[in-house]
Amino acid sequence: MVNNDAKQLDTVFAALADPTRRAILARLASGEASVTELAKPFDMSLPAISKHLKVLENAGLIARGREAQWRPCRLDAGPLKEAADWIDHYRKFWEESFDRLHEYLQELQKKEKEHERKKRNRRRR
Amino acid sequence: MVNNDAKQLDTVFAALADPTRRAILARLASGEASVTELAKPFDMSLPAISKHLKVLENAGLIARGREAQWRPCRLDAGPLKEAADWIDHYRKFWEESFDRLHEYLQELQKKEKEHERKKRNRRRR
Repeated sequence: MVNNDAKQLDTVFAALADPTRRAILARLASGEASVTELAKPFDMSLPAISKHLKVLENAGLIARGREAQWRPCRLDAGPLKEAADWIDHYRKFWEESFDRLHEYLQELQKKEKEHERKKRNRRRR
Repeated sequence: MVNNDAKQLDTVFAALADPTRRAILARLASGEASVTELAKPFDMSLPAISKHLKVLENAGLIARGREAQWRPCRLDAGPLKEAADWIDHYRKFWEESFDRLHEYLQELQKKEKEHERKKRNRRRR
């Protein structure tokens, strides 16, 4: 079970590691589409697009209709949940580092204001 | 900028598409470690682990100390935020499909109860 989950995560993350495949998923988020429709926005041959679709299908991220002529692709976001859950374990780490950056920038701003105030005071004297 | 963001996502998702690399990140979540310490739980040579560390380092997911002898690795979760943000656009899709599954299971349970009730009533007559 653990190994299957790990393999599932491997194929999902590998499928997402390509801008064309991410763009195909983004397109399918607004409704199902045929291979020809999916190929249109990319400067790519149908076989090249089909190869990307195969990767997405193996990762369970898209499903395809069974009609011989018109086999529309549709988004299947289920496997993305596991990927999101895995990444979410690390949320506190990036939130902590952004908090530290925010504190550091506030500290810089405070110093900058203090510096401006002293400069103005010197001019007045 | 968009292309840089896309490339960053490519390398982050590709880095996550391997169980050893995910395990290394999980280990580093509990504190920094040397290459030898990281290699221990895996049945792998130091060069093999070093190769995985290189992939994680290129994706910006780990940083390494500069001391020649002891170059501890530490987690850098920042790039995971972008990956989480990207996946999060699809949250409503998997939530919808789990809602539909939940509704379907409730419907099945209702039918099952109805069936049991009718069976009991028939026995009583």
